[in-house]
Amino acid sequence: MTIVNNVTRETDRSGLTSFLAGGDLLQRDLLGIWGGRPDQLGRIAEYALVPAGKLLRPLLVLESARCVGGTAEGLTELALAIEYLHVATLLHDDIIDEDDMRRGRPSVQAEFGVPAAIVAGDGLILETFAALTGSRPASVSDADIVAVTSVMARAGVGLCRGQLLESEFVGDLDCTVEQYLTMAQLKTGALFESACRIGAILGTDRQDWIDALGEYGMKLGTAFQIRDDLLAFDDTPALIGKPHESDLQNRRPTLPILLSYQRAADSERKQLERAFRGELPADESFAVVRTIVETTGGRDAAAQFAAQLIADAKDRLTRLPVGESTDTLAEIAGYASRRAF
Amino acid sequence: MTIVNNVTRETDRSGLTSFLAGGDLLQRDLLGIWGGRPDQLGRIAEYALVPAGKLLRPLLVLESARCVGGTAEGLTELALAIEYLHVATLLHDDIIDEDDMRRGRPSVQAEFGVPAAIVAGDGLILETFAALTGSRPASVSDADIVAVTSVMARAGVGLCRGQLLESEFVGDLDCTVEQYLTMAQLKTGALFESACRIGAILGTDRQDWIDALGEYGMKLGTAFQIRDDLLAFDDTPALIGKPHESDLQNRRPTLPILLSYQRAADSERKQLERAFRGELPADESFAVVRTIVETTGGRDAAAQFAAQLIADAKDRLTRLPVGESTDTLAEIAGYASRRAF
Repeated sequence: MTIVNNVTRETDRSGLTSFLAGGDLLQRDLLGIWGGRPDQLGRIAEYALVPAGKLLRPLLVLESARCVGGTAEGLTELALAIEYLHVATLLHDDIIDEDDMRRGRPSVQAEFGVPAAIVAGDGLILETFAALTGSRPASVSDADIVAVTSVMARAGVGLCRGQLLESEFVGDLDCTVEQYLTMAQLKTGALFESACRIGAILGTDRQDWIDALGEYGMKLGTAFQIRDDLLAFDDTPALIGKPHESDLQNRRPTLPILLSYQRAADSERKQLERAFRGELPADESFAVVRTIVETTGGRDAAAQFAAQLIADAKDRLTRLPVGESTDTLAEIAGYASRRAF
Repeated sequence: MTIVNNVTRETDRSGLTSFLAGGDLLQRDLLGIWGGRPDQLGRIAEYALVPAGKLLRPLLVLESARCVGGTAEGLTELALAIEYLHVATLLHDDIIDEDDMRRGRPSVQAEFGVPAAIVAGDGLILETFAALTGSRPASVSDADIVAVTSVMARAGVGLCRGQLLESEFVGDLDCTVEQYLTMAQLKTGALFESACRIGAILGTDRQDWIDALGEYGMKLGTAFQIRDDLLAFDDTPALIGKPHESDLQNRRPTLPILLSYQRAADSERKQLERAFRGELPADESFAVVRTIVETTGGRDAAAQFAAQLIADAKDRLTRLPVGESTDTLAEIAGYASRRAF
């Protein structure tokens, strides 16, 4: 709670506040698009999309367009497309992880059943591409749409590759930091990269700006994944909307756990292994891991990794035009280093 | 077996033979694209895509392009995109139906597990759009790619809506023929329509030809779904690659079953209901339904439905230029009225 309040106070008059407030407008647009559709796909999509999360990815599309001198005017439907893909992967994640809660309420699979959640996730991926090739302002060319669609499709493929990589590492405490980072870049970085890249493509023809924003997004997204890993060890379950134990129960070697394992003494390593193999009672298991992640400094080391990525992300912004949107993107990076979206 | 031989004899020197032989070339291209990729997504995609089915959908893309006076030259990768979407839905179908066999060997979920099958299906949907926005001949414009991508995305959304509709009708013998047809049009018709429409867009700017081919594809695909329903009551399990009982076990009200139920006397209706509710022993269940589908004439009535759709499909071809490809498309329709692809 303190963290949230601090952030709000720190940034009260900043671009970040209005950036995040933009989410409320997008939320209204989402409801306009998805509210009250009569068919089952519409019903599930509305349930999954509204109320939304922070809508960070579509907001990044719009801010990236502004950052390179373009306008966000008329880009709402194109920007929201990335949220459909993101939410589709959440639907399918929850099936895979057997998570019954998402954003503090029953997940789609818990509410509508696994078969419907599989099909609705597919439908949302397809809606992403329907939205990208749907209505758009006259200023956006066919070539822009092709470029943007290609970026989105490739990022999505990367995301799936990252998820498959992650499942190869399930239960594997010997996963290296490099392997973890590859996985995090694909699983989370790629979609953030695509958000920024898509916005930039819609706002400019300058390839160097498009690339700088793409790299910013990749660093930001990878840092975000690490922050997400760290949230499991925070004191504010409300922020996550899923149980603290979820990663552990799914035997997912997150960065704080991997770094702790590398640093741990033999007895602690054995305890981590037992917790990871599910050999400890469920309630004891998380407490054990939590203590070891603290005492070994693995948690702090993971936070340091995230901080470095954030610094790198901010560095990329120095290649972009000076302006309000660029400042806002820098603030978003700072925000992400303190908590996850 | 007799059926297959008849078809081969009947069409030996026809365009249909070379049309289907085109599948062998596409199969080689598929292997070139997907063979030996080192990552898990590549491995699963190769397993799911090669050896391929008849590759009817990509073949329809190419034939439709030729039919309106275009060339199929250089369109292979664009044409194969639709197969990725089709196969993705098969992967996910097999999870939903808990089918362990597909095309005569273990399904992806049986071979790689459910989580990997979910993610790989997503990956294949995304590969569809990566392929559509990837390399292409200079003759294909950005506007064509946007149009084609939009058609594919909307067809995919339709397919998902059809699948959700189908699951709403599970176990419901009171599903009407109209409801069944809406479901079949969405679930199977839409993708066939998009195949023909996409090929036409790549081959011509004439909207009336594009629409005629789209309608042909919709009729053909819907007929195909009915033929697929009927296959369960055929004597050649090798043609399906999945058990005869699959639809019944999944309590799916297929057209022959619905029409039989409408025609059945009270005692037969009760038997159908019991078989559908799983109240009969598994081996008895299918035999009972099979007999009733014969004796009521429900099977023949469903075949008649398919035949009418095929006649309608052929009718649409009269709006297209006279030529070899148009003849071939007519033959494909005739072929589909005899057996499923």
